[in-house]
Amino acid sequence: MSQDATEERVLGAVDERRELINAAIDEDLPMAEPERLYEAARYLLEAGGKRLRPTVSLLAAEAVADVEPLSADYRAFPSLYDDPVDVMAAAVSLEVIQSFTLIHDDIMDDDDLRRGVPAVHKAYDTETAILAGDTLYSKAFEIMGETGARAENGLEAMRMLASTCTRICEGQALDVQFETQGDVEPDEYLEMVEFKTAVLYGAAAATPAVLLGADDEVVDALYRYGIDSGSAFQIQDDVLDLTVPSDKLGKQRGSDLVEEKETLIALHARQQGVDVDGLVAATVPEEVTEREIDEAVNELEAAGSIEFARGKARDLTEQAKGRLEVLPDNEARRLLEDVADYLITRGY
Amino acid sequence: MSQDATEERVLGAVDERRELINAAIDEDLPMAEPERLYEAARYLLEAGGKRLRPTVSLLAAEAVADVEPLSADYRAFPSLYDDPVDVMAAAVSLEVIQSFTLIHDDIMDDDDLRRGVPAVHKAYDTETAILAGDTLYSKAFEIMGETGARAENGLEAMRMLASTCTRICEGQALDVQFETQGDVEPDEYLEMVEFKTAVLYGAAAATPAVLLGADDEVVDALYRYGIDSGSAFQIQDDVLDLTVPSDKLGKQRGSDLVEEKETLIALHARQQGVDVDGLVAATVPEEVTEREIDEAVNELEAAGSIEFARGKARDLTEQAKGRLEVLPDNEARRLLEDVADYLITRGY
Repeated sequence: MSQDATEERVLGAVDERRELINAAIDEDLPMAEPERLYEAARYLLEAGGKRLRPTVSLLAAEAVADVEPLSADYRAFPSLYDDPVDVMAAAVSLEVIQSFTLIHDDIMDDDDLRRGVPAVHKAYDTETAILAGDTLYSKAFEIMGETGARAENGLEAMRMLASTCTRICEGQALDVQFETQGDVEPDEYLEMVEFKTAVLYGAAAATPAVLLGADDEVVDALYRYGIDSGSAFQIQDDVLDLTVPSDKLGKQRGSDLVEEKETLIALHARQQGVDVDGLVAATVPEEVTEREIDEAVNELEAAGSIEFARGKARDLTEQAKGRLEVLPDNEARRLLEDVADYLITRGY
Repeated sequence: MSQDATEERVLGAVDERRELINAAIDEDLPMAEPERLYEAARYLLEAGGKRLRPTVSLLAAEAVADVEPLSADYRAFPSLYDDPVDVMAAAVSLEVIQSFTLIHDDIMDDDDLRRGVPAVHKAYDTETAILAGDTLYSKAFEIMGETGARAENGLEAMRMLASTCTRICEGQALDVQFETQGDVEPDEYLEMVEFKTAVLYGAAAATPAVLLGADDEVVDALYRYGIDSGSAFQIQDDVLDLTVPSDKLGKQRGSDLVEEKETLIALHARQQGVDVDGLVAATVPEEVTEREIDEAVNELEAAGSIEFARGKARDLTEQAKGRLEVLPDNEARRLLEDVADYLITRGY
């Protein structure tokens, strides 16, 4: 299938579910007292987001239960045992966790903007932002506790949520550590990416399987699918930073180079003897010229570093799709394969 | 029983369990990679703390199971159904939550010291402190997920932990809100205290009952016991700030007045027409004189405000002890009654 058709199918699947997901977020995380706290907590969730991760959860539920996409009620979804399960709550819970991590990350990185609006600690204040993140954190566990799944499956989903959050924190700490650590190996970098970004895709894909009572083999396969495709997504992000024009990217192309961010590309280039930190002279994105970036990209291409990252992302994507072979052969599974492809073929 | 004898029994019960609790914290929250993250996360837990809350958990388990104090293994504790339960893990989980809230509260209040050592964001940095708190947050859920309790009870304990954390965040937000809100009612203040401080005592007392498979009536009674005695504790804290000499208090007596902190005493006095904010002229604790504090205390006593707070704390304590009547009459239950008394009779 062509790249465009894949993208169309994935964006179609997301579009078909977005309103359901947004309505569920409103239901499961309603406004409450104290008002300012809940406003701040809901602020980023209301500001948008593609809802790709919750879509993955819903598709995973459909693939595991082997039902036609959009044929079953996500709030009372057919499990592999008796009771219906609210798989939408699991999707919302993980989106709420994602929102909490964005709020706290923006404080830590002192980023001003997020999803085109001021970051929560700018729109409100740092104290409120810390507390809004903390509130989303426990709300995510509350919501995950309300799926109606069999107790053993509900408990396992909570445990998976907890260990996923710990991994995300560890990944963020590794990311900070790598900024000053001199000799990061590509494998260490990939572990950081897995912890910081990909485990949440893993949990998004695997949690519905846990709740629906799927075998460990299926749960593990979906978790690994999420890890592999989420890692590929992050690596592709680093490629796009160098290869997509600034106006399409929505920020200065090459800003990772300017900010001397560790990426798989930079790590590979350094191993090839490239003076990565000297590639561009500018120290803030506003001061760099397109020509400087072009020359840097040429050097990174000559070292094979961009192709190395592209190849790694492709390998991870093929691996991700292969994981799904334990699932029944159905439309939802094919859409999950498309999602994996889309994550590395999307233009920006 | 005399006040001294009560205190002796309570401190004895705490002393007898402290090493077990500290060893369990080390086991359930071991050092891990990334090292700096886990060092920061463990820092306050290692700096000490009385371990009163985990002691309440362990006593509650003994009271519910109706076993002699210290006669059963907390790691394989006799439940009311078949399987043994690790009630110590629940106690550790709640102590870990307490530590997370202290780390984030200290950032929000920009407090420099905690338990006699620099606050985590001072000993490390704000980014690390936010992340250390976030890590403890999920670790607490991971630890609570490892009690070995029957799935329905394990899941219920996780849900209680989640709703407790949400309440704590709401309480902290209310506390911040009250600093600028003009017309706080005593009942609103008590709700804030319940949310911010007392629910964690409630969870500490009730969670073992949930895990051991006790009836809802017993769970609720222990939860209310914790709420009532925890609220009394906090109110008594405000009384002590005015009535205990600075050298025993470990900080300037009357600093709540200087910092214009809302307390039950201040709210009551304001209702009696006292110009509370004008009671002391100093705006930082270093500048206030003992004489100024003495005069302020005299005025608050004349308005009946200190006695009002003392009376409220006493009423809540009696109510707390009354809640325990649904439990079997045993030594552990009597120690829980002693703990409630101790929380408002402790000198400082």
